[in-house]
Amino acid sequence: MTDSIISALQATLPAEQVSVREDVLAAHALDQGPVTDHKMPIAVVWAQSVEDVQSVMKLAHTHSVPVVCRGAGTGVSGGAHATTGCLVLSLERMDRILEIHPEDEIARVEPGVVNADLNTAVAEYGLMYAPDPASYKISTIGGNVATNAGGLRCAKYGVTRESVLALDVVLADGTLIRTGRRSFKGVAGYDLTGLFVGSEGTLGVVVGATVRLRYLPADVQTIAAFFPEVTTAAAGVLAVGKARVQPAIMELLDGNTLVQLDAEQGSDLRQRGGALLLIQTDGFAAETEAKIVRQVLGDLGATVTAEVSEEAVRLVELRRHSRGAEMDDVFRVGEDVAVPRSQLVHYIAELERIAADHEVGLKVVAHAGDGNLHPTFWVTAGETEKIPLLNAALDESIEVGLALGGTITGEHGVGQYKVRWLPLEQREEVLELQRGIKALFDPKGLLNPGKALPERIEA
Amino acid sequence: MTDSIISALQATLPAEQVSVREDVLAAHALDQGPVTDHKMPIAVVWAQSVEDVQSVMKLAHTHSVPVVCRGAGTGVSGGAHATTGCLVLSLERMDRILEIHPEDEIARVEPGVVNADLNTAVAEYGLMYAPDPASYKISTIGGNVATNAGGLRCAKYGVTRESVLALDVVLADGTLIRTGRRSFKGVAGYDLTGLFVGSEGTLGVVVGATVRLRYLPADVQTIAAFFPEVTTAAAGVLAVGKARVQPAIMELLDGNTLVQLDAEQGSDLRQRGGALLLIQTDGFAAETEAKIVRQVLGDLGATVTAEVSEEAVRLVELRRHSRGAEMDDVFRVGEDVAVPRSQLVHYIAELERIAADHEVGLKVVAHAGDGNLHPTFWVTAGETEKIPLLNAALDESIEVGLALGGTITGEHGVGQYKVRWLPLEQREEVLELQRGIKALFDPKGLLNPGKALPERIEA
Repeated sequence: MTDSIISALQATLPAEQVSVREDVLAAHALDQGPVTDHKMPIAVVWAQSVEDVQSVMKLAHTHSVPVVCRGAGTGVSGGAHATTGCLVLSLERMDRILEIHPEDEIARVEPGVVNADLNTAVAEYGLMYAPDPASYKISTIGGNVATNAGGLRCAKYGVTRESVLALDVVLADGTLIRTGRRSFKGVAGYDLTGLFVGSEGTLGVVVGATVRLRYLPADVQTIAAFFPEVTTAAAGVLAVGKARVQPAIMELLDGNTLVQLDAEQGSDLRQRGGALLLIQTDGFAAETEAKIVRQVLGDLGATVTAEVSEEAVRLVELRRHSRGAEMDDVFRVGEDVAVPRSQLVHYIAELERIAADHEVGLKVVAHAGDGNLHPTFWVTAGETEKIPLLNAALDESIEVGLALGGTITGEHGVGQYKVRWLPLEQREEVLELQRGIKALFDPKGLLNPGKALPERIEA
Repeated sequence: MTDSIISALQATLPAEQVSVREDVLAAHALDQGPVTDHKMPIAVVWAQSVEDVQSVMKLAHTHSVPVVCRGAGTGVSGGAHATTGCLVLSLERMDRILEIHPEDEIARVEPGVVNADLNTAVAEYGLMYAPDPASYKISTIGGNVATNAGGLRCAKYGVTRESVLALDVVLADGTLIRTGRRSFKGVAGYDLTGLFVGSEGTLGVVVGATVRLRYLPADVQTIAAFFPEVTTAAAGVLAVGKARVQPAIMELLDGNTLVQLDAEQGSDLRQRGGALLLIQTDGFAAETEAKIVRQVLGDLGATVTAEVSEEAVRLVELRRHSRGAEMDDVFRVGEDVAVPRSQLVHYIAELERIAADHEVGLKVVAHAGDGNLHPTFWVTAGETEKIPLLNAALDESIEVGLALGGTITGEHGVGQYKVRWLPLEQREEVLELQRGIKALFDPKGLLNPGKALPERIEA
């Protein structure tokens, strides 16, 4: 079976679009998520056109070979990890911006367009593509769509789903369909567009996206507020909300995150506070809103940066890339629980307790404006005997997050790594409906098997 | 069959929750949409609890009786019209606001809560529920969810789907499920919440909704701008966009709409211009933005109201209720096409041509900020021989809207009336996927049959 589909792919596509070289397979076997089940693909295929994707899916369908789609491979839940006997279908070469229409305030792109490249292109027109995952400089719109990527400015501008108007999708059997519309509004038919967004390549292959653009803000104000402790900083998030100011960005960094930044940057952040809240207001009222924010946080005891602060701007950039070169592995796992906003303070306190109980390391950053936390738990690399402690801490952090009304994943996706936790959040009836949808779109189960949804437990 | 389910319902529910009285059946047979197939329900059932809905659905499932859900009956696409032999299941008595959580910025409501009542209740906390269909004073959240209702302030704040975080849904067989989450963000599993929103009661019965609230704006500024003609007014919409100002409301009224308002109100609007653009800016920058809008529209030749204008505020209220007591019928049909913003000017010109060609009346109002137009076409009531002209004009308005990249329905829903047009917008493969989803959720086809999706055309 393996040989026959590879021959068929090689007969269908130019040589530079199919590879079975060991090093290439290895380089495309994993995304940045934790690895629990390392498998090699049987081949890597690069699509350069919609027709290529259709050809690949038709062959995969005929030969019953699984297909794992891949953009830049920056996902952190293992959604693009290879599975047994799969093809990896890379969309990264489909990287054309097909259209920018400033009056319609939309763009049409191929899936391999890098998020930052789209933003650079539309900025010329005073527009922006709002979703801004930390990986925006390298991640693709296709990957962002697959995971319904979030980012820093979601609380104000919404996540990926709220910016996607229409999708071109190649189904499991190679059929090309178009969902959605070019207009902002539309309620014709079920929301298939929204269903594909966040489905992690398990329902179809996104080969084109029509996205809504927003206005580049006339002004941006950045505030850095140091707090004595992380709980007060979290209370600051609620206080800004109570002042009815909607910042574009509201990021919380705990003390251990500051320690790490200091080590990397030679800065003295941790000396200045036990937690940092970074806030950007934007738009025509950026200054007015920033003034209110400063007042509110100052009243809570924060040390707030001056009105124009280059440092604050630099800190936001640092925060954007605070994952750095860090890759999750068996010794270090970044999490992604989102909780209702009022639970931020309590959940962070619980995380600290959990880390202490299990004697594991912990640092926390949060897109605090929408209650989305990224705690990272770790044990010393190489100390294999500590891995059960790490996993116990992770499990407990998920259980506590759910008990507070949260979700196991705010923006990273279920992928392969979090599949085991999904039944803790969603009941079997809800999982069954999703399995039904999966079976409808992908009757042979070839699209990214083992991801996004747990297997049915047979009685 | 009819007798047996009615007996079963009467045995299960208190007497005041089941009616088979002719006048009651007649009063619940139609919503406000055009009537093409007038049918009477066999009974009207009022649910007072989730358990009631489960009982009704279990009985309907056992007896294979169709169920048409109904809120306030303010829909305008016939989505709540009775179908042959159906029960009408009214959710209007399930009208409790279950929770308002100001720190989480969410509310949990039963489906029968009236949109305006929710807004009144949350205003106390400085919050608002953003979706504001024209019917907001009488329509229910359940109905708003069923149609993914829009309204005036969607361009800035999004439609219903963007405000719904979680749903409690009773499935066709009576099973209760919960979709979504209480946190703002979350990507666990497929977006079943988004799938139920806008599905017009064809996939399940929404018995509870958790909605996101937004901040009541600190300030609101209202501008009325009279233009010599409707095309210039439409150009004004693009000019405001080009100034990168995002108003909360941007409503366009054509000359015939002004004539009608003058007749009803004794005003002189039509004398003052051939079209009116009503704009509200809101938030901390409302004044700054209003100033820019006045400048931009003045430069285009508009006569703009003074800085504080009671008249402008009153006109927005008038616009909100500009349908008045108007009910669509065979002589008068309100449409709901949405087009890409750049096509507004051109589409309005086309609508005028179509009305002239077919010798039918036309007035146009539009949620211009998101390209959503509500043209009303009419012939003189009673002139039955003119109905084919009216229908030809309607068909052509749809075809032209689609050719410009638009959709057959921006916010009203497909319901029963627009089912015939859906295949013009969506190809058979896309319709088939939706039929598959429908069959998965409702294998017996009992939930609102004949709505939202056209029947499969057998070969």
